[in-house]
Amino acid sequence: MTATPEAPVKTNDGQLTLELDRAHVFHSWSAQGALKPMVIAGGSGCKVWDFDGKELLDFSSQLVNVNIGHQHQGVLDAIKAQLDILTTVGPAFGNLTRGRAADLILDKANQGSEKTHFQKVFFTNGGADANENAIRMARLVTGRDKVLSTYRSYHGNTGSAIVATGDWRRMPNEYATGHVHFFGPYAYRSEFWSTSEEQECERALHHLERVIQSEGSHTIAALLMETVPGTAGIMVPPRGYLAGVRALADKYGIKLIFDEVMAGFGRTGGWFAFQSLAEDGVVTTPDLITFAKGVNSGYIPVGGVVISPEISAAFDEAVFPGGLTYSGHPLAMASIIGALTAMQDEGIVDNAKRIGEDVLGPGLEKLAARHEVIGDVRGLGVFWAMDLVSDRETRTPLPAAKMAELKAKLLSLGMLPFVQENRVHVVPPCIVTDAEVEQALAIYDEALSSL
Amino acid sequence: MTATPEAPVKTNDGQLTLELDRAHVFHSWSAQGALKPMVIAGGSGCKVWDFDGKELLDFSSQLVNVNIGHQHQGVLDAIKAQLDILTTVGPAFGNLTRGRAADLILDKANQGSEKTHFQKVFFTNGGADANENAIRMARLVTGRDKVLSTYRSYHGNTGSAIVATGDWRRMPNEYATGHVHFFGPYAYRSEFWSTSEEQECERALHHLERVIQSEGSHTIAALLMETVPGTAGIMVPPRGYLAGVRALADKYGIKLIFDEVMAGFGRTGGWFAFQSLAEDGVVTTPDLITFAKGVNSGYIPVGGVVISPEISAAFDEAVFPGGLTYSGHPLAMASIIGALTAMQDEGIVDNAKRIGEDVLGPGLEKLAARHEVIGDVRGLGVFWAMDLVSDRETRTPLPAAKMAELKAKLLSLGMLPFVQENRVHVVPPCIVTDAEVEQALAIYDEALSSL
Repeated sequence: MTATPEAPVKTNDGQLTLELDRAHVFHSWSAQGALKPMVIAGGSGCKVWDFDGKELLDFSSQLVNVNIGHQHQGVLDAIKAQLDILTTVGPAFGNLTRGRAADLILDKANQGSEKTHFQKVFFTNGGADANENAIRMARLVTGRDKVLSTYRSYHGNTGSAIVATGDWRRMPNEYATGHVHFFGPYAYRSEFWSTSEEQECERALHHLERVIQSEGSHTIAALLMETVPGTAGIMVPPRGYLAGVRALADKYGIKLIFDEVMAGFGRTGGWFAFQSLAEDGVVTTPDLITFAKGVNSGYIPVGGVVISPEISAAFDEAVFPGGLTYSGHPLAMASIIGALTAMQDEGIVDNAKRIGEDVLGPGLEKLAARHEVIGDVRGLGVFWAMDLVSDRETRTPLPAAKMAELKAKLLSLGMLPFVQENRVHVVPPCIVTDAEVEQALAIYDEALSSL
Repeated sequence: MTATPEAPVKTNDGQLTLELDRAHVFHSWSAQGALKPMVIAGGSGCKVWDFDGKELLDFSSQLVNVNIGHQHQGVLDAIKAQLDILTTVGPAFGNLTRGRAADLILDKANQGSEKTHFQKVFFTNGGADANENAIRMARLVTGRDKVLSTYRSYHGNTGSAIVATGDWRRMPNEYATGHVHFFGPYAYRSEFWSTSEEQECERALHHLERVIQSEGSHTIAALLMETVPGTAGIMVPPRGYLAGVRALADKYGIKLIFDEVMAGFGRTGGWFAFQSLAEDGVVTTPDLITFAKGVNSGYIPVGGVVISPEISAAFDEAVFPGGLTYSGHPLAMASIIGALTAMQDEGIVDNAKRIGEDVLGPGLEKLAARHEVIGDVRGLGVFWAMDLVSDRETRTPLPAAKMAELKAKLLSLGMLPFVQENRVHVVPPCIVTDAEVEQALAIYDEALSSL
């Protein structure tokens, strides 16, 4: 299942990598001056290593995107095969690999609902421009301008996507119009003074409806939300919330966009998070799904929008005013086919579900019972957060210095963790084994004990 | 130099491609209903073919991006080698291939000017988000909001990039603030009632300065311009214009961004268009360069921003509020190294220059002498436009129906052309041979004769 570089080999390239990086590479979301990036030389499955041969257990999946693990042979082979056929082609031309990739994505998107609910895919380069184009479609179809999204969200770094984003990254970038933010449900740190999951759901829906009414429902084109907010803290919505949002969207003629860039393609133990969150067998479907990351585990940059027939049909006669050079790029398409076929054939999505239910979820609960510093554990599949607090009663977030100490300890114990604000996101590849989860739990345990 | 698929083979996959496409693929910049996309099955060098074995001479370079030609073995090998090392890694980590790609790009960007003028590269997924991030840098460094760009331009399809765009594609998408448009020089269809190239330059600079003053120079962060406007009509700026724009930017403290997404990496017969347009050995350098397309001929989706030390240094202490999952993607970086190394070792950029000067330019001028319908021929390197008119005196653009007829004729004669409004853009790969240019000129000649 994994490629040739099975074992880390010590070389002298680490120093060269750092020198070239510091001299010439400008980094995302950073002050550039004091950066001293960790160097990754290679990887395989759930492991990565540096040029000194030091191995780390990757419980970050990089940016929560390497769902199939590092260097999966099936995906590498699919890319290599396409390299020998046709690497690139303009988006206006018909391409067989593109049609097959779209077909496969739609097959997954329609699981659990009507087979024909989603019919077309628009391919982009990543999650940000997937959201840009979904917003564009919703605006043009409704003839309305406003887009509602939550304060606890991240939707990408381009013009509209970054202003749809709720977190601090929006603030220096507010050059897009028509964006309004609201609060989503988050029972552990409620904005609605609720005391139960049920009450949190009810009040979050009330709050959303009041925002819709107060903005003027006739001005709102789209409701854009991460099905399970990711970077913002992996807040699994309470029972009834998604269906409630769908009902509000229908009531007010608003298009519902589920951003599944991080949550999609196995992360939650289903093909899509909205399928994992089905209630009594009923799936709540959006009008548009945006995706990237897990669709091909980031082996080639790609993203896209899954489109309902109603929205697609609105552009049968009218020109869709959006597009890009690499839309439906053959090599990216081949990597999607490779990744989704392997995930299906090797039961990788089911593995994520089983790991979450039987090993990782219970294991994290056990940690929470042992460590006072864990205020909350939440998640599903291979998509979990430990919310760390200095006081369980007040739920005061653990200070940044302590989090930095914890991160350093986890690294020293051989884990590549995902640390975000006062949280550790536990987000291994979907292929993670029971043994690797046990190893990770032991590392978290030791690191938390050292605090 | 080219990969295995040397010869087109007839198969039955054409029909399947069309069926899957029509059922499931949503296309860029199109009404979806009546689409019947041409199918491309494979390609090599300057040729592509369909599943019926029909070959076409690609004088479009797809979307003017396959500068190194289809299936260049050196680039394919570089991608395959990286596939066996490490396909993907998070942007925060140090990566050797990324550092090497940045180093190589900077080496090209600094040719003809001070070796240290450009020092860092920020990698994106394509040209649109390259422009988004360049605009972001200019705004944050200057503390100003407005971005000036020309009406005859295309800068990408995301939030800010599409509103910076001048053409019709901006109009349904105006959800970004702070964008102002002005007219660039275009001697053949002057907006300034000029009667010579010299006068056009002088008046275009006067117009730009008056717009700057009237908007309030202290409100303007950036001047964003395609060094040679591409899709808008390949208008090579008149002598003195780039230097004049640079002087205005300096006078008013505005950051100058050259969008070299289409013009860069060989297209103009130099590594960058601003180098090709050096006057008396003096290169006019911008503060930021945006690139994509030709940097790796689109073999993997990628783009980026080349950054001057002054702008880079502004983010040594301050956090740069932009980023993306696939920034500096290893596989994309390997394709850049493969493409730029091959272009350098095989003299591909020099070939583009020589072809433009000795074969393609003179050939197009000869066509213009033979065909009344050619109102203007302009360009350099492998970046040319034939501006077609129904009347040479009034310069009335040839009507759309005639252009459609011409396009169909070119296709029937075995050429894949690039037809845009009333123009044929003559934009083959930079590897094009004298014989292929002669073949293309003969096809243009025959098709124009049939009008």
